[in-house]
Amino acid sequence: MMDIGASTLIIATALLALGWAFIQFLTITRISVESSQRGAYETVNADDYAEDEYEAGATTRRLIEIYEAIYEGAESFLRAEYTYCAVFVAGFSVVVFFLVAWGTDWDTTRGFLTASSFVLGALTSMASGYLGMKVAVYSNVRTTVMAQKPGWTDCFNTAFRAGAVMGFALCGLGIMMLYLTMLAFRVHYYGPEQWVYLTECLTGYGLGGSTIAMFGRVGGGIYTKAADVGADLVGKVVHGIPEDDPRNPATIADNVGDNVGDVAGMGSDLFGSFAEATCAALVIGNSIGVSGGWDAMVFPVIVSSVGIVVCILCSFIATHIRPVRSEANVESALKMQLISTTVLMIPTVIVAAKVYLPESFEIKATVGNDLITLTPIEAALCVIMGAVGGLTIGLITEYYTSHSYKPVRELAHSCKTGAATNMIYGIALGYKSVIIPVVVLAGVIYGSFTLCDMYGVSLAAIGFLANLATGLTIDVYGPVCDNAGGIAEMAELESYVRDKTDALDAAGNTTAAIGKGFAIGSAALVSLALFGAFVTRIRNASAEAGDELFLNGVNVLEPLTFAFLIIGGMIPFAFAAMTMKSVGLAAMEMVMEVQRQFDEKPHLLDENPTERPDYDACIAISTKASLREMIAPGAMVIFTPLLTGIFFGVNAVSGLLVGSLVASVQLAISMSNSGGAWDNAKKYIEKAAPDSELEGKGSEIHKAAVVGDTVGDPFKDTSGPALNIVMKLMAVLSLVFADTFYAFNSGGGIFNL
Amino acid sequence: MMDIGASTLIIATALLALGWAFIQFLTITRISVESSQRGAYETVNADDYAEDEYEAGATTRRLIEIYEAIYEGAESFLRAEYTYCAVFVAGFSVVVFFLVAWGTDWDTTRGFLTASSFVLGALTSMASGYLGMKVAVYSNVRTTVMAQKPGWTDCFNTAFRAGAVMGFALCGLGIMMLYLTMLAFRVHYYGPEQWVYLTECLTGYGLGGSTIAMFGRVGGGIYTKAADVGADLVGKVVHGIPEDDPRNPATIADNVGDNVGDVAGMGSDLFGSFAEATCAALVIGNSIGVSGGWDAMVFPVIVSSVGIVVCILCSFIATHIRPVRSEANVESALKMQLISTTVLMIPTVIVAAKVYLPESFEIKATVGNDLITLTPIEAALCVIMGAVGGLTIGLITEYYTSHSYKPVRELAHSCKTGAATNMIYGIALGYKSVIIPVVVLAGVIYGSFTLCDMYGVSLAAIGFLANLATGLTIDVYGPVCDNAGGIAEMAELESYVRDKTDALDAAGNTTAAIGKGFAIGSAALVSLALFGAFVTRIRNASAEAGDELFLNGVNVLEPLTFAFLIIGGMIPFAFAAMTMKSVGLAAMEMVMEVQRQFDEKPHLLDENPTERPDYDACIAISTKASLREMIAPGAMVIFTPLLTGIFFGVNAVSGLLVGSLVASVQLAISMSNSGGAWDNAKKYIEKAAPDSELEGKGSEIHKAAVVGDTVGDPFKDTSGPALNIVMKLMAVLSLVFADTFYAFNSGGGIFNL
Repeated sequence: MMDIGASTLIIATALLALGWAFIQFLTITRISVESSQRGAYETVNADDYAEDEYEAGATTRRLIEIYEAIYEGAESFLRAEYTYCAVFVAGFSVVVFFLVAWGTDWDTTRGFLTASSFVLGALTSMASGYLGMKVAVYSNVRTTVMAQKPGWTDCFNTAFRAGAVMGFALCGLGIMMLYLTMLAFRVHYYGPEQWVYLTECLTGYGLGGSTIAMFGRVGGGIYTKAADVGADLVGKVVHGIPEDDPRNPATIADNVGDNVGDVAGMGSDLFGSFAEATCAALVIGNSIGVSGGWDAMVFPVIVSSVGIVVCILCSFIATHIRPVRSEANVESALKMQLISTTVLMIPTVIVAAKVYLPESFEIKATVGNDLITLTPIEAALCVIMGAVGGLTIGLITEYYTSHSYKPVRELAHSCKTGAATNMIYGIALGYKSVIIPVVVLAGVIYGSFTLCDMYGVSLAAIGFLANLATGLTIDVYGPVCDNAGGIAEMAELESYVRDKTDALDAAGNTTAAIGKGFAIGSAALVSLALFGAFVTRIRNASAEAGDELFLNGVNVLEPLTFAFLIIGGMIPFAFAAMTMKSVGLAAMEMVMEVQRQFDEKPHLLDENPTERPDYDACIAISTKASLREMIAPGAMVIFTPLLTGIFFGVNAVSGLLVGSLVASVQLAISMSNSGGAWDNAKKYIEKAAPDSELEGKGSEIHKAAVVGDTVGDPFKDTSGPALNIVMKLMAVLSLVFADTFYAFNSGGGIFNL
Repeated sequence: MMDIGASTLIIATALLALGWAFIQFLTITRISVESSQRGAYETVNADDYAEDEYEAGATTRRLIEIYEAIYEGAESFLRAEYTYCAVFVAGFSVVVFFLVAWGTDWDTTRGFLTASSFVLGALTSMASGYLGMKVAVYSNVRTTVMAQKPGWTDCFNTAFRAGAVMGFALCGLGIMMLYLTMLAFRVHYYGPEQWVYLTECLTGYGLGGSTIAMFGRVGGGIYTKAADVGADLVGKVVHGIPEDDPRNPATIADNVGDNVGDVAGMGSDLFGSFAEATCAALVIGNSIGVSGGWDAMVFPVIVSSVGIVVCILCSFIATHIRPVRSEANVESALKMQLISTTVLMIPTVIVAAKVYLPESFEIKATVGNDLITLTPIEAALCVIMGAVGGLTIGLITEYYTSHSYKPVRELAHSCKTGAATNMIYGIALGYKSVIIPVVVLAGVIYGSFTLCDMYGVSLAAIGFLANLATGLTIDVYGPVCDNAGGIAEMAELESYVRDKTDALDAAGNTTAAIGKGFAIGSAALVSLALFGAFVTRIRNASAEAGDELFLNGVNVLEPLTFAFLIIGGMIPFAFAAMTMKSVGLAAMEMVMEVQRQFDEKPHLLDENPTERPDYDACIAISTKASLREMIAPGAMVIFTPLLTGIFFGVNAVSGLLVGSLVASVQLAISMSNSGGAWDNAKKYIEKAAPDSELEGKGSEIHKAAVVGDTVGDPFKDTSGPALNIVMKLMAVLSLVFADTFYAFNSGGGIFNL
C-alpha cells in the first residue's frame, strides 16, 4: 500500500510536470511570428497604410530569417557536440562496465547495470539540453513579437513560459527516467538487503548526467563566450557599433551561444546536480530501505516530486495572481518565484517526511560503527536548511551583482580611473562575495551533518534543488530575453522593443546570478554528499573484506591524503586556466575573422550596408573552437580522480575530492560574481546620462567598463559555472568506481604507497 | 663537549653573518655620492670643462636631494608603521601572557616566557625590516652613481652587496636572537624533559616575527602599490609621461614604496618564515632532546647556520669568480647564486646531520601512539628535498614570468586584441602556473612526511629556507636597482644610465619571481609543519589530561572540521579582496591628488617646468592609506583562528588551518605569477620595435599591456605575497594558543558543539 503510494506520487508528479510543460509550450505556439510593426530602418509613412502593411511583412521575413539562422546554428552545434559526447559515452560505458565488474569480482550484472544507468543518464541529459535549446530558440522570436505589443504582461509571460517548458520538462524527465530505472533494477535486486547494490548501480545515472553536463557547460560556455567576447572586442571596442548590430558578423554566433551555453549547458548542469544529489542520498540512505521499506528509501525522490507541485502552484503568482504590468514588476516577479517556492516547500517537506518516513529509522554513521536513529522531522529539517540556505546564498549573490546595490555601483565608479581599477575592484568584489555564502554553506553543512550525518548533507543538497523547476524557469528566461533583444536589434525594430527586452533581460541577469548562487551552493553540498557516499561505499567494501578502512574517518594527516588535498585544490585553478584560455583563444580567432570580413567588405559598416556579413564563418569558428577546447579540461576532470584512485588509492582520492571541493566552491562563487558585477556595472554606466558623473555610453568610463564586462564573460559563463561540475563530476566518478579503487590492493592503488 | 659544539657553531656562524654583512656595508660606504656626469637636461658644452664640472656638481646635488627625499619618506613611514606595530605588540603581549598562562593552569612562567619571546620576535622583525630599508635607501643612489661608470661589474656589485647586507644581517640577527632566547629559557627549563616547554614558549618568537611581517607586508604592500598604481594611472595612462618622471608628484612615493614594501616588508616576511619553521621543527622534535641531547634537538638551527656559510662561499662566485661583465651576465649570475647554494647545501647538510644527530633517534608519530626511529640521513634527505623542491618551484616560476619563455610572450601577443584578452590570458597564466609547483610541493610533503613524519615536513620547510641569505640578497637587489633607475630618471641623467639600471632591474624582476616561488613554497611547508606542531601540542595536552584527542589524526568527516575547512578556504579570498580593494582605493586617492596638482599647476608638465610637484602630499596619502587599510586584513588573520579556537574548539581550528593552507597556496602562486607575467609582458612589448608586430612603447598594444601591469601590481606585490603570511600566521597563532584552546572544554571551545 505504502509502496504504491510513493511510486504513484513520483510517477504522477513526473507526468504532471511533463504535462504542465506541454501546456506551457502550447500557449507559446499560439503566438505567430508576425511583426506588428515595420522595421525602424524603413522610412515611416503613417498615411500610407498599404506600405506600412508591406514593411511589416518585410520585417516579419527578416525576423524569420534571423530566427532560422539562430535555430540552425544552435541545432548544428548541438548535433556536433552530442556526436562527440555520444562517442565518448559509448566508449566510456565500456570502461564503466569493465572497471565496475572487475572491481566487484566480476559481478557482470553490476557492471552492466551501472553502465546502463550511465548511458541512460547521459541520454536524459542530452535530451534535456536539446529540448531546452529547441524551446528557447522557438520562443525568443515570439518574445520579440510580443514585446512589440503594448504592455509588459505578454512578453514577460512568453519568456517566462519558455523557461517553464524547460524547467518542468527537465524535472519531469529526470525524475521519470531515474525512477523507472530504479524500478527496473528492482526487478533484479528485489529484496531490501540487495537495494544497496541497486543504489550503487544507479550512481551511473548521476555520472552519465554529469559527464554530459561537463561537456555541455564547457563546450557551450566556450562557444557562447568566444562569440560574445569576439563580437564585443571588434564590434564595441574597435568599431563602436552597438551590441547585436546586424553588420557585425559574430552576432548570430553570439545569439546561438546564448542558447547552447546558457540554456542547454545549464540545463544539463542542473539535471546533473539533481541526479547526483539523489544518487548520493540513495547510496548513503539505502539501509533505510531495510527497516523502513521502499517508500522510506526513496524519500529523496519524493522531495523532488513534491517540489514540482510547489513550483507549479507558485508559477501562477507570476502569470495570473500578480501579473507583470510594468518594468518595475519584472525583477520582483522573478524573485517572488524563488521566495514563494522556498517558503511553500517548508510545510510540504514536513508533510512528505511525516507521510513517507517511518516514525524513527536508522542509518550507519560515516565515522565509527554507530547506528544513528533519525526522525522524519530531522530529515525534513535538513531539506529545509538546504532550501533556505540556497535562497540566502541566492539573495546575497543578488546583492553583489545587481546594480541596485552598493557593490556594483562602487565598481561602476571605479571605471572613472580606467580599466585597471575596474579590474582590481571587480576581482576584489568577487573574492569578497565569497564570505557570506561560504559561511552559510558551512552552517548548512554543520547543521545537516550533525542532525543526520552524511544523509543529512545529501538531503540538504536535495533541499537546495527542491525548487529546481522554478530555478530552471528563471535561468532559461534570461537567455530567451537576451535573444529576443538580439533579434529586435538585428531586425532593426523600433528602439522601444529593444528597451523592453533589455529591461526583461536585466532582471534576468540578476536572477540568473541568483540561480548561479543556487547552483554553486548545491554543487558544494552534492559533492560533499557524494564524497560521503564514496566513503560509505568504501567502508562497505572494506567491511566485507574484514578491513577497517575509513573507520575513523578521513585523516588529513595521512601523507598521501594531504599531498592530494593540495593537488585537489589545484584542479579548479588548472581547470579555470584551461577554459579561460580557450575562450581567449577562440575570441581572438573570432576577432581576426570579423576583422577580415570588415577588411574584405569595406561597405559592411555603412549606414545602409550593400554587403552582408558572413555569419556562418563565425559560427564555424565558435563550433570548431569549442569542440576542440572542451576535450582537455573535460578529460582532466574525468581522468584525474580515475587515475588517482587506480594508482594511488582511496586515501589519495579522498584528499583530491576534499581539496577540489574546498577550492572549487570559492573560485566558482567569486568568478561568477565578478563576472555578473562587471556586466551590471557596465549596464549601470550605460543607463547614466552623458552629463552625469559616469558619463554614460560611449565615454572613456564606459570603455573601461566594457573591458571588465569582456573579462567577466568567461568568468561568469564559462569557467565559474563549469567549476560546479568539476567538483561534482570528480566526486560522482569516484563514487561509481569506489569498488574498483578498493579492489587495487584494498584501496592502496597500484603503487600501494 | 657536543653541547659546546652546536652552540659554538650556531653563535659563530651568526656572528660570521653579521660580520660579513658589515664588511659588505663598508664596501658600499666607500662609494661617495658624486655624479661623474652632468644631467642630460643641461646644455652640453663639451669644450667647456669648467662648466661641465659645475653641472656635475649640480647633478650631484640633485641626486642627494632625491636620495634624501626617498630616505625621509621611507624613514617616516616605517616610524609610523612601527608605532602602530609597537602598540599592537604591547597590547597583544598581554593577551599572550594571560591566555597562555590561563591555558596552562596559571603557569605564569610559560605565559611570561611566551610573551617575552613574542616581543623579542616582533622586535627582531622590526629591526630587520628597518635595517633592510636603511641599507636599500643608502645603496640605491650609490648604484646609480656606479651605473654612470663604464662596465657592469661595479654597479651590479653595489646592488648585490646591498642585498647581501640585508640577507646576512637578517639571518645572523634571526639566528642569534632565537638561539640566545633558547639558551636563556634553558636556564629555567634545564632538564631535557622540560625542553618541551622551552620549545613551546619559543613559539612566541615565531608569532612575533609573523605578526610584524603581516603588518609590514600588508602596510608596505599597500603603500608601494598605491603609489605605483596611482603614478602609473595618471602618469602613463592619462598624460603619457614616462615612469619615474620627476614631474609626476607620485614618483617619490613610488620609490619610497619599493623600500618599505619590497625590502622591509619582504625582509620581515622571510624572517617570519625562518623563525616559524625553526619553532615548528623544535616543537615537533623536542623529544629528540631527551634521547639525543641538546645538539640533536637544535639540528634545525644548525641547518640554518651552515646555510650561512654556504651562502657566503657562493657569493664569491658572483663578486669574484665570475664577475658580471655584460648585460647577459646579470640574470645568470643571480640564478647561479640560487643554484650553487642549493647544490652546496646537499653535502653540507648530510655532514651536519652526521655530526650533530645521533645514529638513530626517535620521534612520536603525529597519528597513533607509535615511536618512529629515524636516522641522520633520513633527516638530511628531508632538508634536501625541501631545498631542491624550492629551487624547482623557483625555476618553474621563472618559466612563467620571464619574457624569455613562451607564456609571457604569448601574453604579450594577447595584448593585440586589447586589455580584455590580456586580462583573460594573464589570469589563466597565473592559474596554470599553479600546477607544477603544487605537484612538487605535494611530492615534497609526501616524501618528507613519509620519511620522518611531521618532523620531516618541518625539516623540508627549513630546507626551503636553507639558502635564505642568498634569497634575501637577490630579493633586495631588485628594489635597489629599481630605485637606482628611478633616481637616474628623476635626476635626468643620461639615458644609458637608466638603460643599465633597467637591465639590472629586469634580471631582478625575474629572480624576485623565483624568490616569491621559494617564499610561497616554504610558507606552505611551514604552515603544514606548524599545523603538525599544533596537533602535537594538543595531543600532549590531551594525553596529560587522559584524553585521546587527535589520536587518529584530523578527520575531515567531523561536521565542525569540514564546516571550518571551507571557511578556511574562504579566508585567503577574503584577505585578497580586502588588500586589493585597499590598493585600488588608495590608488584612486593618489590619482585624484596628482590630477589636482596637474590642474592647479598647469606648468608642471612643461618640458622645463617652472613649478615643482608636491611630493609630500602623495607620500602622505600612501602613508595614511596603508596604515588605515592594513588593520582590517591583519585583524581578520589574527582574530579568526583565535576566536575560532576559543569558541568552536580545536577541531574547528584544524579545519580552518587546513582549508586556508589549501586555498592560500594556490591563490598566492597564481596571483604572484599573473602579476609578474603582466609586468614582464609589458617590458617585452616596450622592447619591441615600433614597426614590429607588437608595435612597442606608446602603441595601443602597449596601453593594453599597461592595464595588465597595473592590475598585476597589487596581485604580485600586495595580496599574493601577503597570502604567505596569512597561512603561516594563522598556524603559528594556533600553535601558541594550543593549550589555551584545549583548556576550553577539553578543546571543544566555549560553544562545545
